[in-house]
Amino acid sequence: MSGVQGYNPRTGEPVGEPVPETSDREVDAVARAGEAAFPAWSAMPTAERAAVLDAVADALDASAEALVELAEAETALGVPRLTTELKRTTNQLRLFGDVLREGSYVEAALDSANPDIIPPRPVLRRMLRPLGTVGVFAASNFPFAFSVAGGDTASALAAGCPVVVKAHPSHPGTSRETARIVASVVPAGVFGIVHGQQAGVALVKHPSIKAVGFTGSTAGGRALFDIASGRPDPIPFYGELGSVNPTVVLPGVATARPEGIAAEFVGSLTLGVGQFCTNPGLLFAPKSLVPALADAVSSAVGGPMLNERMSDAYRSGTEGLGASGLVELVAEGTAPSEGWSVEPKLYEVPLAAFAENLEKLTEEHFGPAAVVVTYDDPAELEPVLPRLPGTLTGTVHAAEAEHDVAGRVSEALRPVVGRLIFNGWPTGVAVAWGMHHGGPWPATTNPLHTSVGSTSIRRWLAPVTYQSWPDDLLPPELRDDNPLGIPRRVDGVLGVH
Amino acid sequence: MSGVQGYNPRTGEPVGEPVPETSDREVDAVARAGEAAFPAWSAMPTAERAAVLDAVADALDASAEALVELAEAETALGVPRLTTELKRTTNQLRLFGDVLREGSYVEAALDSANPDIIPPRPVLRRMLRPLGTVGVFAASNFPFAFSVAGGDTASALAAGCPVVVKAHPSHPGTSRETARIVASVVPAGVFGIVHGQQAGVALVKHPSIKAVGFTGSTAGGRALFDIASGRPDPIPFYGELGSVNPTVVLPGVATARPEGIAAEFVGSLTLGVGQFCTNPGLLFAPKSLVPALADAVSSAVGGPMLNERMSDAYRSGTEGLGASGLVELVAEGTAPSEGWSVEPKLYEVPLAAFAENLEKLTEEHFGPAAVVVTYDDPAELEPVLPRLPGTLTGTVHAAEAEHDVAGRVSEALRPVVGRLIFNGWPTGVAVAWGMHHGGPWPATTNPLHTSVGSTSIRRWLAPVTYQSWPDDLLPPELRDDNPLGIPRRVDGVLGVH
Repeated sequence: MSGVQGYNPRTGEPVGEPVPETSDREVDAVARAGEAAFPAWSAMPTAERAAVLDAVADALDASAEALVELAEAETALGVPRLTTELKRTTNQLRLFGDVLREGSYVEAALDSANPDIIPPRPVLRRMLRPLGTVGVFAASNFPFAFSVAGGDTASALAAGCPVVVKAHPSHPGTSRETARIVASVVPAGVFGIVHGQQAGVALVKHPSIKAVGFTGSTAGGRALFDIASGRPDPIPFYGELGSVNPTVVLPGVATARPEGIAAEFVGSLTLGVGQFCTNPGLLFAPKSLVPALADAVSSAVGGPMLNERMSDAYRSGTEGLGASGLVELVAEGTAPSEGWSVEPKLYEVPLAAFAENLEKLTEEHFGPAAVVVTYDDPAELEPVLPRLPGTLTGTVHAAEAEHDVAGRVSEALRPVVGRLIFNGWPTGVAVAWGMHHGGPWPATTNPLHTSVGSTSIRRWLAPVTYQSWPDDLLPPELRDDNPLGIPRRVDGVLGVH
Repeated sequence: MSGVQGYNPRTGEPVGEPVPETSDREVDAVARAGEAAFPAWSAMPTAERAAVLDAVADALDASAEALVELAEAETALGVPRLTTELKRTTNQLRLFGDVLREGSYVEAALDSANPDIIPPRPVLRRMLRPLGTVGVFAASNFPFAFSVAGGDTASALAAGCPVVVKAHPSHPGTSRETARIVASVVPAGVFGIVHGQQAGVALVKHPSIKAVGFTGSTAGGRALFDIASGRPDPIPFYGELGSVNPTVVLPGVATARPEGIAAEFVGSLTLGVGQFCTNPGLLFAPKSLVPALADAVSSAVGGPMLNERMSDAYRSGTEGLGASGLVELVAEGTAPSEGWSVEPKLYEVPLAAFAENLEKLTEEHFGPAAVVVTYDDPAELEPVLPRLPGTLTGTVHAAEAEHDVAGRVSEALRPVVGRLIFNGWPTGVAVAWGMHHGGPWPATTNPLHTSVGSTSIRRWLAPVTYQSWPDDLLPPELRDDNPLGIPRRVDGVLGVH
């Protein structure tokens, strides 16, 4: 029987025993178990479901040391980062508990009757209800926060949806242990896990699966999106795919503190060996900033990437870019000689040449590589920025006196961007009501939704309206006396009533 | 040059001159005009955009007599119905104006910074912004309310999206005249119209089109959904497709007032010659109710359907059903001999046989035909109802003493239903905050959204987050002092602040 083998990126050596691939029959059983668990899980009072999320968080925190050790062996991301990432993951579960307790996530709306308008209105009461069992594809680069118990899983469980996770092959042992802990806390059938590429395909096709969340490459996400959309009954597919994260440094900042901005840029570029969806891979800067950027990249040290395929893709992708004749390699950092290590790289191209070859030069090279596009006048950026492919973030660095031009540049960026950042860096994604981690294709497969933050729960919920319905048969969220005390829209007016 | 010819359904004779089909080059020009108009239209202050919607409504109302006359000639739906439908359409435009003025539709969320949590939180401000130019496919059966200036158009314009309508071939003259009026009121490029099937396909494929709304058949909607999902950059496609609208009559009601319930049922079934997406095509009732139902259907009078294809499809579909051996024809009404008229029909099948042939017996036969499924004990319905295909509505008729069983039956219906109706009928869709006109596939292509009511605007909006953004560069909805006075979520709490 074939299995999914974890490896130590520092050595390329196997870690632990292979985890068996899940057969189609086993996928079927796990998905059906989710479907069977759905009625009870979705009907559980929200306060109780919130308590289960808290309990999952507590159980993961209690096993933090062992989980981090497993993840470090399989990912080489480092104990401090992994410890923080696990805490982020458990805080995220608790945040969704708070979202449930607050209660406005169901978007309850109550309308009184009005027989005198056209068309006449009966008594209407509307709220969001969970969709059904959800498939979640874990990411390579966040073994906790975007994996087995990560954002997609937490938001779907919170919504009242059972979850079946497709584990990422870069951390099968971490995934199996995390899954064991989650499954030990939630009711039977509410959580399951499958391993292996074929199992992932079977999951997306399975009639018991009603929606899918995915974080990964554009090619992989597109293939699964096509399967989900091609089903006899198409299902929502929320994929977070590629992103080049353009960052614009305006002249005032480039002049005032070139070394500072260069150091911050390289810090963001090389964080986690550049393995972030928000990695700043495209920098627009005055030519004068290039020496400082080159110095900073030259001094930067890379590290091992998560797996051999990603390391190879980074090398061949950046070498192809360098050999394309479209850009110039201006700096290269160093890397430890161990395992799947790669070096940071910086390429340069003038704006006019970039604009001519925009499609080729905005391909994502996952890892610590960036292209700096040099410009003379920020006004030249305005027609170019809206042509960028959809991206998770767009950043503008501006001095106090440059707000006007910053406003024009950011308006040019906004249509292609999910999150706009001022005088900061795109890596680091807060988990909050105000977060949007999404964007137009190819940043995601669906621009309406976020995969991070409180509103990511909306992906797993669909409305239902009760018309002329007796109060004793309504869900508590819609009853006259508002027993849960949640914010609702009554005759169009939002409030706790 | 080929054209789209309107016909009088009462006679089958042409009405007016054919409207020219739109060439691919013309489609391109209209879609690009939308894209060019997008920045100004989307940036227009919401109060001004609301005033434009009001002006469109006023202009349509001012031309009501001529529009209704045109539509009556092309659809034979009757002057009273068409007059009401146009009023519904203009009220809908005004309702969206109110939605804009209220302002919570942008879902503004403001989070303060918290550097002490994991992950740390910078200042975040999030709101919804319009997606871009929208394609709208008009429906056959609502020449006003779901057509050129109907719900999809009104909600997209309100969102700040330019609209290009693909007119329905059953009412080309009405469509052209409505489009002329709308275009005379909105800024240039914000509204356009195309005619012909090939133009519709070109519209869905056009890179300037960022989302599509559709109301029509499952086959047509599926084909266009596949095109939208198969684009190099897939776009959201909101299709409202087929629906059988199951209605359950519990024994207490069937016993108490058999003639009353039968008369109401047939009234809903034959309204508009059964040409409603909410037509009650599937009735679950005790066997004892069948004679009253049969009497009512026998006395019912049909009428002309909207076009020859639909009339033919109704005849061949219901004849095929009758010849299938799966059901028994228990009643047939009459029809005027004119044009494309069809007769109401009622078929009967026992629950056990229905459950065995569920897929075949839940195909929609657009028009005034229904299948009554007879049962002995309502408990037998509970395992069958969740197997129904996704549907816009589900209705339960229950006596005061039957609330318990009504609750169980409606919970069995809920997972496949968008709107649950108590002691009413599914035809008649109010336009309100509390409305949901949607449901799981094949009722719609996306179960998260509604095509009717205030929240239908959400389909055309995508979030953007501003991180650490200076107040003077923020949209008014997100500024510190809340200059528009709209409801917002500040540090997680909803209110006008």
